[in-house]
Amino acid sequence: MQATIMYGAGDVRVENVPDARLIEPTDALVVVTRAAICGSDLWPYKKMGPSETGNRMGHEFIGIVEAVGADVRKIKVGDLVAAPFAWSDGTCIYCQEGLQTSCLHGGFWGGTKLDGGQGEAVRVPQADGTLVPLQVGKDNALMPSLLTLTDVMATGHHAALAAKVGPGKSVAVVGGGAVGLCGVIAAKRLGAEQIILLDRHADRINLAKEFGATDIVSERGEEAVTRVRELTKGLGVQSVLECVGYEESTLTALSIARPGGAVGRVGVPQSEVMPAVIPTFFNNVTISGGPAPARAYIEELLPDVLEGRIEPGRVFDRVIRLDQVPDGYRAMNDRKAIKAMIEF
Amino acid sequence: MQATIMYGAGDVRVENVPDARLIEPTDALVVVTRAAICGSDLWPYKKMGPSETGNRMGHEFIGIVEAVGADVRKIKVGDLVAAPFAWSDGTCIYCQEGLQTSCLHGGFWGGTKLDGGQGEAVRVPQADGTLVPLQVGKDNALMPSLLTLTDVMATGHHAALAAKVGPGKSVAVVGGGAVGLCGVIAAKRLGAEQIILLDRHADRINLAKEFGATDIVSERGEEAVTRVRELTKGLGVQSVLECVGYEESTLTALSIARPGGAVGRVGVPQSEVMPAVIPTFFNNVTISGGPAPARAYIEELLPDVLEGRIEPGRVFDRVIRLDQVPDGYRAMNDRKAIKAMIEF
Repeated sequence: MQATIMYGAGDVRVENVPDARLIEPTDALVVVTRAAICGSDLWPYKKMGPSETGNRMGHEFIGIVEAVGADVRKIKVGDLVAAPFAWSDGTCIYCQEGLQTSCLHGGFWGGTKLDGGQGEAVRVPQADGTLVPLQVGKDNALMPSLLTLTDVMATGHHAALAAKVGPGKSVAVVGGGAVGLCGVIAAKRLGAEQIILLDRHADRINLAKEFGATDIVSERGEEAVTRVRELTKGLGVQSVLECVGYEESTLTALSIARPGGAVGRVGVPQSEVMPAVIPTFFNNVTISGGPAPARAYIEELLPDVLEGRIEPGRVFDRVIRLDQVPDGYRAMNDRKAIKAMIEF
Repeated sequence: MQATIMYGAGDVRVENVPDARLIEPTDALVVVTRAAICGSDLWPYKKMGPSETGNRMGHEFIGIVEAVGADVRKIKVGDLVAAPFAWSDGTCIYCQEGLQTSCLHGGFWGGTKLDGGQGEAVRVPQADGTLVPLQVGKDNALMPSLLTLTDVMATGHHAALAAKVGPGKSVAVVGGGAVGLCGVIAAKRLGAEQIILLDRHADRINLAKEFGATDIVSERGEEAVTRVRELTKGLGVQSVLECVGYEESTLTALSIARPGGAVGRVGVPQSEVMPAVIPTFFNNVTISGGPAPARAYIEELLPDVLEGRIEPGRVFDRVIRLDQVPDGYRAMNDRKAIKAMIEF
């Protein structure tokens, strides 16, 4: 079969690999129908050192179950399923608490040992815990929005929950990539009154406004902080969604939170230390977030997608085929595309 | 009148200063009956550069109202009042939210412009917002416990709330000073099942056990992390109260929180950056806390003190008079005393 392999920074190839197949009795074999390239895939695309073996890529996919292991009970051959970006057993202490990204017997797709979503098929471990059947046809028009539930929409929702977004609150979203845009949707959905997007790219800004952003701040650093304060009677916002991960964007996020506010961080941190922890201490700012338990949120957000109340699939502004994946990475890295969907 | 002034590291003196007096119409003049030396007073005692004018010290006190300004409505001459460690107007947006330490018109005691609690009398700004009348006599046997409500017991409670302590939870308290010991009381009061104290001093450990600590970890650094994991089935604890403020203790606190757990930090941070923010991200650990809104908590905790359900006053293991304050600092800094109370 064909699958995407990253061999180093800027070096993504679609190549022949051994066919995905069942190994454990709890596995399912899923033939991929839709997948995506994630903003977090761009971190290794920028930084990864050269590798002879490379890493299999992709952690957002929907597909059809072709086979299941002997111990799989809930998932059936022929099901159309969504796979969250982490696989999980559904039974451990963390899965029971709804934090499936910390599953004691789970993990993440791709790398050197597992299939990735950016390929023709995937062996899915812990299929009963991991996969969510979708009650729609494989080419349903809602497919882009359904695909975002596997990561970016779930992640935007997680950021909003971690930032304690609620009715009437003031919210800032730092970074208008696909996750930040979904963060705007999530903030609006949870009742935020003011939603400030911090970004400077016209395509993202336009979409954010359609999703519910009330204000745009295109300044950076100290100027951005000043501007957000101007927009919030000098106070800062109650909730901040940090959707980038750089130390600079984290500093901005922490600096625009008002006393007693909360920062939900979902941008994968690119620095081992967090800045400005003395002012955040004196302001009693809560810092929360991490990888979103998409497995828990898919079921929560699914009705809103199916009934058309949210349209996160609009973050896909490029549709490609598997052999065009290297172009998709390049376009996203060059900010010529917000997010690319792969159709099979 | 006599008051405590710090002129630099290790240099604390009790000297004559101008008598405290009303200045603003919202002021009250309070004659101090009990005060205390705080663990946080030891930070400048260790580090402060030499100062010609010095800083007035003390932020925990109880006293009798001797005079009030023309605009003071609730506080009456003759009231016995407790003063939280921050003064606040009681009406601003943050006071209304119960975060009086961020009051838009408030501040902290002492320094170069305001009286401190470690003196014979204090001008109290925003008296109606700041002071809490106590319905007991000035020499009531509960006075030590009542005095802790002005800071350390409120701070331990704040750490426990920030760490999301609740019924049946596993909790670790990093640091067994007065705040950490009050954190043990707070965790027990909120229903924690397991309370692990990280400390190595026998006097603190003994008191912590009486307050409800179920386990003691005297190791440090990586060994402490290993030990806490052993005590929690390999998982780590759900709630961590960081009651020290050093980067090392913060690293320990973050490292013993289990996935989905929370760290309530109340030790004043001694480093501008926070370590280990990548693992805490992947574990979805919440970091919260800051200066406790003692003003809000005094009223919440007061019934438990008055009815004897909690006895935080036991953290005072030394009682001194005002002229002995320099000895009190020395004893606390040398860890010969947990906390000193000043009787006037």
